[in-house]
Amino acid sequence: MLDRWLRPLRSRAKITVLCLLLTFIVLHGTFTSAKSGSSEESSDNHTSYASRKRAESRRSLEEAQNDNNDKNYAEFEISKILVDEEGGDEEKPHPNKPYSLGPKISDWDQQRSEWLKNNPEFSNFIGPNKPRVLLVTGSSPKPCENPVGDHYLLKSIKNKIDYCRLHGVEIFYNMALLDAEMAGFWAKLPLIRKLLLSHPEIEFLWWMDSDAMFTDMAYEVPWERYKDSNLVMHGWNEMVYDEKNWIGLNTGSFLLRNCQWSLDLLDAWAPMGPKGKIREEAGKVLTRELKGRPVFEADDQSAMVYLLVKERAKWGEKVYLENAYYLHGYWGILVDRYEEMIENYHPGLGDHRWPLVTHFVGCKPCGKFGDYPVERCLRQMDRAFNFGDNQILQMYGFMHKSLASRRVKRVRNETANPLETKDELGLLHPAFKAVKVSASS
Amino acid sequence: MLDRWLRPLRSRAKITVLCLLLTFIVLHGTFTSAKSGSSEESSDNHTSYASRKRAESRRSLEEAQNDNNDKNYAEFEISKILVDEEGGDEEKPHPNKPYSLGPKISDWDQQRSEWLKNNPEFSNFIGPNKPRVLLVTGSSPKPCENPVGDHYLLKSIKNKIDYCRLHGVEIFYNMALLDAEMAGFWAKLPLIRKLLLSHPEIEFLWWMDSDAMFTDMAYEVPWERYKDSNLVMHGWNEMVYDEKNWIGLNTGSFLLRNCQWSLDLLDAWAPMGPKGKIREEAGKVLTRELKGRPVFEADDQSAMVYLLVKERAKWGEKVYLENAYYLHGYWGILVDRYEEMIENYHPGLGDHRWPLVTHFVGCKPCGKFGDYPVERCLRQMDRAFNFGDNQILQMYGFMHKSLASRRVKRVRNETANPLETKDELGLLHPAFKAVKVSASS
Repeated sequence: MLDRWLRPLRSRAKITVLCLLLTFIVLHGTFTSAKSGSSEESSDNHTSYASRKRAESRRSLEEAQNDNNDKNYAEFEISKILVDEEGGDEEKPHPNKPYSLGPKISDWDQQRSEWLKNNPEFSNFIGPNKPRVLLVTGSSPKPCENPVGDHYLLKSIKNKIDYCRLHGVEIFYNMALLDAEMAGFWAKLPLIRKLLLSHPEIEFLWWMDSDAMFTDMAYEVPWERYKDSNLVMHGWNEMVYDEKNWIGLNTGSFLLRNCQWSLDLLDAWAPMGPKGKIREEAGKVLTRELKGRPVFEADDQSAMVYLLVKERAKWGEKVYLENAYYLHGYWGILVDRYEEMIENYHPGLGDHRWPLVTHFVGCKPCGKFGDYPVERCLRQMDRAFNFGDNQILQMYGFMHKSLASRRVKRVRNETANPLETKDELGLLHPAFKAVKVSASS
Repeated sequence: MLDRWLRPLRSRAKITVLCLLLTFIVLHGTFTSAKSGSSEESSDNHTSYASRKRAESRRSLEEAQNDNNDKNYAEFEISKILVDEEGGDEEKPHPNKPYSLGPKISDWDQQRSEWLKNNPEFSNFIGPNKPRVLLVTGSSPKPCENPVGDHYLLKSIKNKIDYCRLHGVEIFYNMALLDAEMAGFWAKLPLIRKLLLSHPEIEFLWWMDSDAMFTDMAYEVPWERYKDSNLVMHGWNEMVYDEKNWIGLNTGSFLLRNCQWSLDLLDAWAPMGPKGKIREEAGKVLTRELKGRPVFEADDQSAMVYLLVKERAKWGEKVYLENAYYLHGYWGILVDRYEEMIENYHPGLGDHRWPLVTHFVGCKPCGKFGDYPVERCLRQMDRAFNFGDNQILQMYGFMHKSLASRRVKRVRNETANPLETKDELGLLHPAFKAVKVSASS
């Protein structure tokens, strides 16, 4: 009789234990996924100032929204614990193994030098004082949440195509997330490393955010200035090293030399990136350590400031914080002055008088939550685009009707002797385009 | 007394005459504007097969829709009869003056030759058998009516950037309507002429529609084959010259040499283009004269067929109708075979086994009225994009998880000796990229 009484008890006990187990698993899973970093931006590498200053609540809202929308990466998370039907396990990061961008390479300078010697037709210099440069940018493989966002990505890449064509720079437009752990603003690190190692002929890799546009089509980067530098970012020494200010430099537009030092830097830069607990905790450190930084997960820019401050002796000598021209130019202080610039100055200056780059940090036209009113951002992006586009159009005798207008008007008549007409800016056949192949350096 | 009776009559008469005059002016204006061609596509140069076969009613609907949306060009029409406030009349075409792309040039070969001699650093050949090529494409300066359309334009230009980077081809992405009379598919003519004349260093201009994508990243155009040709289009001699079939050739992807012959061709091609009565009437001629052509306004492709048929003796010798590979490949017969191609063939073939170009004629992802179900088009465009993108990603050890998926997976491990790894297709440092500057030809 006891047995008959105990049997249901044992069944219930089993059920109870099973339920408890399932509850634990579910709770654990919930707890873990709630800590996952936002993968909203996947391959969208906006680094935003104001977004980092705005309330954390907005970001939480974004994350919730994005977890719903970002099915790709949720699926990837799930697949990490399933065997890949296509015949192999998904790459699942070992929880206790520190993150790595790839196998350690210590002799890259020698490997690269050897390769260049054996492949003179792929020289790393395409002219005297003219290194081979690859401009790298990109965006998410998904359509923008904001329908008009993709139109601005399209205008932005056209803008980059124009500048790069004039300056003999090649473009790599990325739309693939190479490493799910390094989603969001960190996605550029695995990509950059991959491109450097695959293309030894590249001397400099120029990373540029998708929300940054060229506004000086005539300005050539002063490559000679950086002959002893390996990393060039817009910024100020004092703001970084003295103030430890989180916006003392900008990683939305920077130059990185293809060399061992850069591989080492990427390795040193990466550890705060892996999404989840690491990125969260690192974010807290950065907020505590850096001046003015709001509370949010670790971003690549803050991490760079932190790295340079902590290890100045190791990296500082090869890092050039440039502020003589706008390698990155914060849009907020530039866009209302375009008419004044047109009135008083001319292309080719690259600085506050005619900025090389206007960078729409915080606008996020692709997403739904930017830090500025959408209309302000979009109207100013139109103006910046037209400001730059005018410098292209004038080569062909046209200009936009106004900085606000998509329409163009003729400003120079057609002629039967087109080659006698000199375009005002001399951009049709500029000196920096007249390249010859020289011996590898 | 008679005078007192007549006075009001005279006033009324004047008023009546004035009213009749105003009525006439308004009716005339209405009549003229109703005949205006669709400027929907402004700088969107889709040449579509099926759209040209579908009911004319759909196109009328489009025009009505677009007249509402296309305020830019309506404003331009109005401004034609107003004095430009900025200080000059808008360009208004003289009603009786035949359309012209620009002042007649008769010595372009000499002008160009002289320029090349004086500017050896801008050679028209960038390598032995490797002419300097400019790929020209573009789209409307307005956001697409279909929100997802801009995303596909973005993927399309990334696709072109990838191919052109591998093959040493420069890109010009146009978003400006240079001549309002030549809106729509005809917009490419003024643009092409302008670019040829501005860039004598260009040997070949490669026009490519925004709805065409590269699907063979390894295929190099056989430039040598065209040494005696000035215009290369995908097509068949029999279908053009014997059948007068309106799809006997395709103007969505073609090569045009920079020379006098080409300027003359553009001049001969243009007359059917000016929107309004000319384009309408020309359309009727083309429908009557060409096999299989539905009723709609003149398009550049039909006009080209007609021109070649009518003036074969003048142009035929320098026109190469290519069908040995898919300089243009109609998507309908290609996209369902990608898996079969992957199974049986490899990149570098360019033909039916592995098409160089997959061209989504009739899909119109930017607009609202395509000729095929939207889902079919978008899904196939994703597949074509991924099919091409896989050839880029494999260089870096990645591939899309499937042709339908945005996500990528690793297919080759990282290594400490990246330069010893040869990418399967040899695209990282292909022979056709190994260019040296040679003397002008």
